[in-house]
Amino acid sequence: MSLLYRQVSIAVFLLTAFSPIASISHADDALPSWNDGPVKQSIITFVEKVTKADSPDFVPVAERIAVFDNDGTLWCEQPLPVQLYFALDRVKALAPQHPEWKTEEPYASILKGDVKQALTGGKKALLQIVASTHAGMTTDEFDKTVSDWIATAKHPTTGKNFLDMTYQPMLEVLTYLRANNFKTFIVSGGGIEFMRPWAAQVYGIPPEQVVGSSLKTQFEVRDGKAVLVRLAEVNFIDDKEGKPVGINQHIGRRPIAAFGNSDGDRQMLEYTQGHSGTTFQLLVMHTDAKREFAYGPTRGMRTPLVGAFTEELEEVAGKQGWAVVDMKKDWKTIFRTTTEE
Amino acid sequence: MSLLYRQVSIAVFLLTAFSPIASISHADDALPSWNDGPVKQSIITFVEKVTKADSPDFVPVAERIAVFDNDGTLWCEQPLPVQLYFALDRVKALAPQHPEWKTEEPYASILKGDVKQALTGGKKALLQIVASTHAGMTTDEFDKTVSDWIATAKHPTTGKNFLDMTYQPMLEVLTYLRANNFKTFIVSGGGIEFMRPWAAQVYGIPPEQVVGSSLKTQFEVRDGKAVLVRLAEVNFIDDKEGKPVGINQHIGRRPIAAFGNSDGDRQMLEYTQGHSGTTFQLLVMHTDAKREFAYGPTRGMRTPLVGAFTEELEEVAGKQGWAVVDMKKDWKTIFRTTTEE
Repeated sequence: MSLLYRQVSIAVFLLTAFSPIASISHADDALPSWNDGPVKQSIITFVEKVTKADSPDFVPVAERIAVFDNDGTLWCEQPLPVQLYFALDRVKALAPQHPEWKTEEPYASILKGDVKQALTGGKKALLQIVASTHAGMTTDEFDKTVSDWIATAKHPTTGKNFLDMTYQPMLEVLTYLRANNFKTFIVSGGGIEFMRPWAAQVYGIPPEQVVGSSLKTQFEVRDGKAVLVRLAEVNFIDDKEGKPVGINQHIGRRPIAAFGNSDGDRQMLEYTQGHSGTTFQLLVMHTDAKREFAYGPTRGMRTPLVGAFTEELEEVAGKQGWAVVDMKKDWKTIFRTTTEE
Repeated sequence: MSLLYRQVSIAVFLLTAFSPIASISHADDALPSWNDGPVKQSIITFVEKVTKADSPDFVPVAERIAVFDNDGTLWCEQPLPVQLYFALDRVKALAPQHPEWKTEEPYASILKGDVKQALTGGKKALLQIVASTHAGMTTDEFDKTVSDWIATAKHPTTGKNFLDMTYQPMLEVLTYLRANNFKTFIVSGGGIEFMRPWAAQVYGIPPEQVVGSSLKTQFEVRDGKAVLVRLAEVNFIDDKEGKPVGINQHIGRRPIAAFGNSDGDRQMLEYTQGHSGTTFQLLVMHTDAKREFAYGPTRGMRTPLVGAFTEELEEVAGKQGWAVVDMKKDWKTIFRTTTEE
């Protein structure tokens, strides 16, 4: 080996090891399902800014809080949100104990398989469905019902397990943030007790880091054992203006990063941006009719219970400098490819 | 050195290093402010049981959740709970903006220094005091007010800073549990936003691991910044039956260890005991009139707003096998001796 060759080798090694280019390459590997482009780069740039000790934007580990909406942000919410499939399946499972449901709406339509008709009853019908399927049992019993259901239920068009319809690129963001000492939270309009049984397994997010909508519960001692009974009464709706309220209630400080996909997430992103330091906001836009679903501004597709990526939201995102994911363009893969541990 | 001496030395070393006695000695060091005795031993025995990999009672790290009441369990609540001193000081600070308070109860009595008279107004008076001092500002503003106050306020009889009236033996328990990979939470009847600003500093418990009573908050955009405004409306009372509800809402699973001191904690301890695995419950009994205060069963001292260690609770503790700390006997030191980092 010539001396010159050795000197060049050492120089190349040093450049590779310590240059900013090397640093970006390394971060790239953390997000392999993202196509290169401004959105992917904006995530990496933000994380590097707040984690490098000598950065003017450095944020201490304790304050590295990131919040994620769930439906449409971490997993598929079309053609209906997953929790509604759960509720519909529960109506069917409980029907033998409720012969009156054969003629009583919204149950009669659900049992005939006509969900659209059932939902014409609006908010009242929905609350009836929730009360019949989500209340009246202990929290331990509900946990088990959800766990059993999610293990076997399948998406109506793809036939996949719902957990396999979580988004691989977002799973990579969760892992990437945690590798950089972020604490990751779910902040969803969905039911808090519906998400907790499986959030750790699929997202690596423990129950105490899940924030969501909830029913009231009541303490009781049954057969000598202390339990909580789920009541048919709404406790909290964790959506729109409710999201910052839920964040403050559960987390107690402003996050520095927020990820959403609809007008239900706008206030959460605004609240995050109100943090005095450097922050990051991202919205997922569903643009891939072939690999997933296309809905949002100018696309018009609306599903009951699903927040909308309105034209107003698009305008706000532009004005505020929020990153907007174009799923078709930005995501190499849509659904999770990793196998569970 | 004779051969015999060396052999004995080696034998002693091996015994010291690997025997159960050595293990207890090591744990002892983690709780230096506790006198030896059954209560101290019960804490150590529990922790060793659930953390040793080959133990039949082994609990995975994710499930090692421990909950602590605050007033009377982690810090002094006599002669009045600390949050009431905060409220009284706020009434005095805000009085110039409220000339009508000079003649209006409960404010008039507070301004005259007659707290006892002010509290004869019962729950109504208390809610008025809370509304006037804890609501009407943003959460960020309230956080700053609390932080400023706690930094300088002094206990009326000891003259100590309130943070120096946290209990050294309990600080050691918190540290000991965390060293064994427990996640520690506060679950208090006190205000969640009153505790969060200083809980990390004194207890090592971050805001997201503080559960407490709360007021409703409302999302607003003020001068282009998203804020939460504290409303004069109770959101949740985290006491008695409310504690398991708060635990489920915030933590989402049953703790395996719970520490309290009054009938306000009974349901939290019962709920913890309802966990299917090995659990631990402890109550602090205030028996040391000389070094702190003596109140509880047969002692009769009652303070408005402070839960009681009733004779019924003492009976339940005995029946359920809960550990009961006799402060006078079990604690070498009462107040914290460590200096802040």
